[in-house]
Amino acid sequence: MRQSQSLDPFFIPKGVAVIGASSNPAKLSHGILKNLSQYGYQGKIYPVNPSAQEILGYQCYEDISHVPDPVDLGVIVLPAKIIPNVLKACGQRGIQAAIIISGGFKEVGKQGSARELECLAIADNFQMRLIGPNCVGTMNLYNGLNTTFIKGMPAKGGIGFLSQSGAVCGGIVDHIVDVGIGFSHFISLGNEADVTETDIIEYLSDDDHTRVIAAYVEAISDGRRFLDICRRVSRRKPIVVLKAGCTDAGAKAVSSHTGSLAGSQQAYRAAFRQGGLIEVHTVEQLLDVAMTLDFQPLPKGKKVALITNSGGPAALISDGLAIAGLEMAELNGKTQSKLRAKLNPAAQVNNPVDMLGGAGPDDFRHALTNVLADRSVDTVVSILVPQSLVNPTEVAKAIVEQANKSNKPILSCLMGKVSIKGANNVLHDNKVPMFDFPNHVGPVLGAMWQYSNYIASKAGNFADLKGIKREKANKILNEYKNQTPIGEAGTRPVLAAYGISLIQAEFAENEEKSIELAGKIGFPVALKVISKEILHKSDAGGIKLNLRNSADVQQGYQEIMRSCKSHQPNACIDGVLVEKMSPAGQEVIIGLKRDPNFGPLVMFGMGGVYVELLKDVAFRVAPLTEQEATQMIEGTFAGKLLQGYRGNPPADKKAIVDCILRLSQIAMDFPQIAEIEINPLLVLEEGSGVLALDCRMILN
Amino acid sequence: MRQSQSLDPFFIPKGVAVIGASSNPAKLSHGILKNLSQYGYQGKIYPVNPSAQEILGYQCYEDISHVPDPVDLGVIVLPAKIIPNVLKACGQRGIQAAIIISGGFKEVGKQGSARELECLAIADNFQMRLIGPNCVGTMNLYNGLNTTFIKGMPAKGGIGFLSQSGAVCGGIVDHIVDVGIGFSHFISLGNEADVTETDIIEYLSDDDHTRVIAAYVEAISDGRRFLDICRRVSRRKPIVVLKAGCTDAGAKAVSSHTGSLAGSQQAYRAAFRQGGLIEVHTVEQLLDVAMTLDFQPLPKGKKVALITNSGGPAALISDGLAIAGLEMAELNGKTQSKLRAKLNPAAQVNNPVDMLGGAGPDDFRHALTNVLADRSVDTVVSILVPQSLVNPTEVAKAIVEQANKSNKPILSCLMGKVSIKGANNVLHDNKVPMFDFPNHVGPVLGAMWQYSNYIASKAGNFADLKGIKREKANKILNEYKNQTPIGEAGTRPVLAAYGISLIQAEFAENEEKSIELAGKIGFPVALKVISKEILHKSDAGGIKLNLRNSADVQQGYQEIMRSCKSHQPNACIDGVLVEKMSPAGQEVIIGLKRDPNFGPLVMFGMGGVYVELLKDVAFRVAPLTEQEATQMIEGTFAGKLLQGYRGNPPADKKAIVDCILRLSQIAMDFPQIAEIEINPLLVLEEGSGVLALDCRMILN
Repeated sequence: MRQSQSLDPFFIPKGVAVIGASSNPAKLSHGILKNLSQYGYQGKIYPVNPSAQEILGYQCYEDISHVPDPVDLGVIVLPAKIIPNVLKACGQRGIQAAIIISGGFKEVGKQGSARELECLAIADNFQMRLIGPNCVGTMNLYNGLNTTFIKGMPAKGGIGFLSQSGAVCGGIVDHIVDVGIGFSHFISLGNEADVTETDIIEYLSDDDHTRVIAAYVEAISDGRRFLDICRRVSRRKPIVVLKAGCTDAGAKAVSSHTGSLAGSQQAYRAAFRQGGLIEVHTVEQLLDVAMTLDFQPLPKGKKVALITNSGGPAALISDGLAIAGLEMAELNGKTQSKLRAKLNPAAQVNNPVDMLGGAGPDDFRHALTNVLADRSVDTVVSILVPQSLVNPTEVAKAIVEQANKSNKPILSCLMGKVSIKGANNVLHDNKVPMFDFPNHVGPVLGAMWQYSNYIASKAGNFADLKGIKREKANKILNEYKNQTPIGEAGTRPVLAAYGISLIQAEFAENEEKSIELAGKIGFPVALKVISKEILHKSDAGGIKLNLRNSADVQQGYQEIMRSCKSHQPNACIDGVLVEKMSPAGQEVIIGLKRDPNFGPLVMFGMGGVYVELLKDVAFRVAPLTEQEATQMIEGTFAGKLLQGYRGNPPADKKAIVDCILRLSQIAMDFPQIAEIEINPLLVLEEGSGVLALDCRMILN
Repeated sequence: MRQSQSLDPFFIPKGVAVIGASSNPAKLSHGILKNLSQYGYQGKIYPVNPSAQEILGYQCYEDISHVPDPVDLGVIVLPAKIIPNVLKACGQRGIQAAIIISGGFKEVGKQGSARELECLAIADNFQMRLIGPNCVGTMNLYNGLNTTFIKGMPAKGGIGFLSQSGAVCGGIVDHIVDVGIGFSHFISLGNEADVTETDIIEYLSDDDHTRVIAAYVEAISDGRRFLDICRRVSRRKPIVVLKAGCTDAGAKAVSSHTGSLAGSQQAYRAAFRQGGLIEVHTVEQLLDVAMTLDFQPLPKGKKVALITNSGGPAALISDGLAIAGLEMAELNGKTQSKLRAKLNPAAQVNNPVDMLGGAGPDDFRHALTNVLADRSVDTVVSILVPQSLVNPTEVAKAIVEQANKSNKPILSCLMGKVSIKGANNVLHDNKVPMFDFPNHVGPVLGAMWQYSNYIASKAGNFADLKGIKREKANKILNEYKNQTPIGEAGTRPVLAAYGISLIQAEFAENEEKSIELAGKIGFPVALKVISKEILHKSDAGGIKLNLRNSADVQQGYQEIMRSCKSHQPNACIDGVLVEKMSPAGQEVIIGLKRDPNFGPLVMFGMGGVYVELLKDVAFRVAPLTEQEATQMIEGTFAGKLLQGYRGNPPADKKAIVDCILRLSQIAMDFPQIAEIEINPLLVLEEGSGVLALDCRMILN
């Protein structure tokens, strides 16, 4: 197993060879050697360049075979076509890990893809791990290792960052290099011939310096392993993820520049949610959320207090918090009188605590002390707009002083730029996150609160489903092997074998039999035509509802035959399904389909025109836990309607959950099933179960 | 009319007195004098301070009466309680405009409110205009006037900015002072005792330097005038608005710090839309959108091309554009071959044009020239992530060079900070907007495209409605003067007098009459109980549907009486409404209510449980144009269903529009009506009209 080989040589190598290091300062490879030399890395550094004696004071080697011990990491910056040979030489020299910086592989098309596979085979052969190709390199901020050509080095901190885009790495470093956001690792993954984000997430989960994992991803190829690892890691360490290509246009842009399979957005969203990831929507949010998770504890509740020297920004932050699902704390009377005792007499002492423009460090100190002590407050946000008579740096010190004494999360918003540089340094050096515009606060606290709830929730188990007859389902599927799509008559027994309740129905091959079965089932009944060729039964006049007696059934049968024959003269009609008319209930849809990256997905949504119009549909990757199935339902409008809206009795949600889990099990057991749709699934009153009223299936 | 008095003295005064100017540099009033002196203002400057001889080289005056000509603007920074007297002295001295910087008015409660009213009365008496109190002052960037105590002065440009929060003014200046976003005016309005945002919008609409108006607002008190003025101005000049308090929590924060009435968010949203305003949701968006509208022409279509040196940011921008409703342009073959001819052979030459990391100024120049020339492209976004071997400033120059030659909008995203300062200067000095994070682009282009469509749309007229019998409605309303709520029986004739179609129905005071009317109306019919006391007819068993013959009616009548009497024994029952059973159609709701700031609002939405659950409801301020009513419908899910979803025939949207306009007219004609609800309004097939099936009304 490649995955069992340690990634340590990428991040704590004893010696690094830069293969293709140039003596020309205008070359990227020179930049790498320089970065490697200047941030305190204590291991050995070896430029490999046959035409130079030394570069930047390091002795050069003709090729990798001449490099002395210790050397366990090779950083390769050479034309793509010679890289397979170089890689082979690395393997022979005993290099355990190689970073291929150069492009010219999968991202440039077929020939490049072949070259990438060749590299992978060589690496496999030597049990060597690969990062890249087409990447920017890696940094370990705790030993000064920097194999990138990025200008600047971030501060040391708790964020382990990984990115499928080298440019995003570079852009972020350019942004944060003097802002005091700190990283443990900074990893550009490029084409991910070998090492993927899943490997890195697993690696960072065991790294003590890494308190939060942040990822920019474009496409996840090992979807199921990704989900497994994230499920495990996210309960110990938060994973924040920004996924590019969350729209069709974006996905197209992603696949045109990476050559990767986009997969469905529904699958990504489902996997992120099930994996406990914190999904953000912008690079700024990725940094904001990761920084705050690194700096501050999680909130214990959703009540936030604002302490401010200005009303406008506090109002904007209040809006942002409400949108993110948080609530404004009600300060208790004692807190308010303590505030009133010292603050400007015109100050507002309820939440937001508005100390007015003249508020100085002492006011912030006083307000923070008292508001933090208030039991109704879970989180405090301090807000300052620079005022000519107040020194922001001193206010920052007052905030930090209180933050250091408290175990509640404290954030700050200092709205400005030129005046607040000093304050920013003080705050970030002391792990109080600072945002420069009010709108940044809401999404950060929303993410923290969501994650807080996630780790407080029970992990959830995969249910042990009773009454599953796998062999029976298998036999039926074998019978239909060469037919697809499979209509109601063929799909029903498969669902039945897995314990999904169906409306009572039996197949009748002729008129007499239909009358007989109707009598047995009990009136009223419905008749539905059964024919491989007739896909849209109602369009063909193949459905008769509410037949109240034998005469109705006889007439109905004849009408169906007449109508279907005239609608599709060549259709071979097997007979009809005689079905009990359904009782009253609410109709929903559940279904199953497959995603190229994540495998089987189950689907739940509102029935009727609303599926298409409202897109009120939720997806989850199968298998899913009972808890995940419940959340899936609750996240939709359909779920809200099922709670018993406007005097209707609550519907049987547990039965839907059971049905979803059984469908999930079918997906796991029979990879040959591409799709199943139960539409509608009739949901009865609580305790009365569900009934599949119609269904169909598509095989691969 | 105060409003007719010019605001010129606020922005182009011949002389300014700073009343309360201090010689102590630690005082705000000193800061104001300093700002007034240092940005090139050429008019006279007079500090008024009885205890100083001169401050900052300006001769001091004992009081305003001693200040020589010319002086037309007074800036007052004194304790609130003496301000009324100072204002009187200003009036006597012939000052035409006063800015009251000091707080201590409406925002501190009752006593402050009284003081504010006193100031307003004095100003009225002297025909003097007031800005403030409790504000930060004003700037006119084109004559160097700066009456604020804010540190720093923005660059000269085309944005006229007004704000109800002084802090937001200060925070913005601190942010943009070295970013090259340019302003014509910068106006802090404080409590708006006199001059409101509406006055300023009107004023700036005639100012030649102002190309775009940007506003931060918390509450709009003169809602109807605001809407009228904006409707007029927005077709000539874009107005971008950020409204704080768009959630309940935010609105509460706003009213606690300003003491203003929040009003409903629905009314604000409606008024902004009808007034053609561009609503944004963050301070950053306010700046981004205003800058871009100032710098660049509007797009002629929604096709965008991206030119980039990196795939990741381009994918993120593609996502943002799709979310904002824009589309990726398909570059034509000729463009692609021209690009292929010069760019890196591995470059992507379709959209996004990805020139890869090494792309330099020449590549950007070449790509821009060709992509701008492509007819399928309406807007171009150039994207650069700093690379060690490329000089961002030179790339910026290449972008500017092409932008200067084109009349298509050109935006840029340079993802970074430390490396791109020079590039930022070059771009903004040459009116190419630059954003530092990819997520900023989508909302900006979305706003521009929305505004582009708005000014391309016909202004719309207030329909001339036929068949309105105002006197008849008036008479009925007088009859019901002392009763409220008014049920179906009383509301129907009012709607009928305004030409709204109702389901055929007549009042029967007893059983015999109900049978007779049913025969006349034609079976099947419904019966509905009529009683002032019974508000929820169906809960009381007061409704019978689908009565097919006289016997059914008789029995139904008796059952209604029995059931209602047992449900509400003391209710006085007038009789029943005999109503024709309605044909098939789609049910919607229309209604009318009143907002404290904007007056009457009409409402349209989906019927049934969906109103509450989906909040699928749109509002507009009455009166509204036919176009606005049509857009109102089209913006809802109900509107989409009415288009004829899934094989249903299209519904009669025109008839709904007519009905909404008639309801709007009722609102305008009868201020005593607080609310009307038509629920459901049955919408028939196109050409067949609508029918109000039930209705009720509340009078003030």
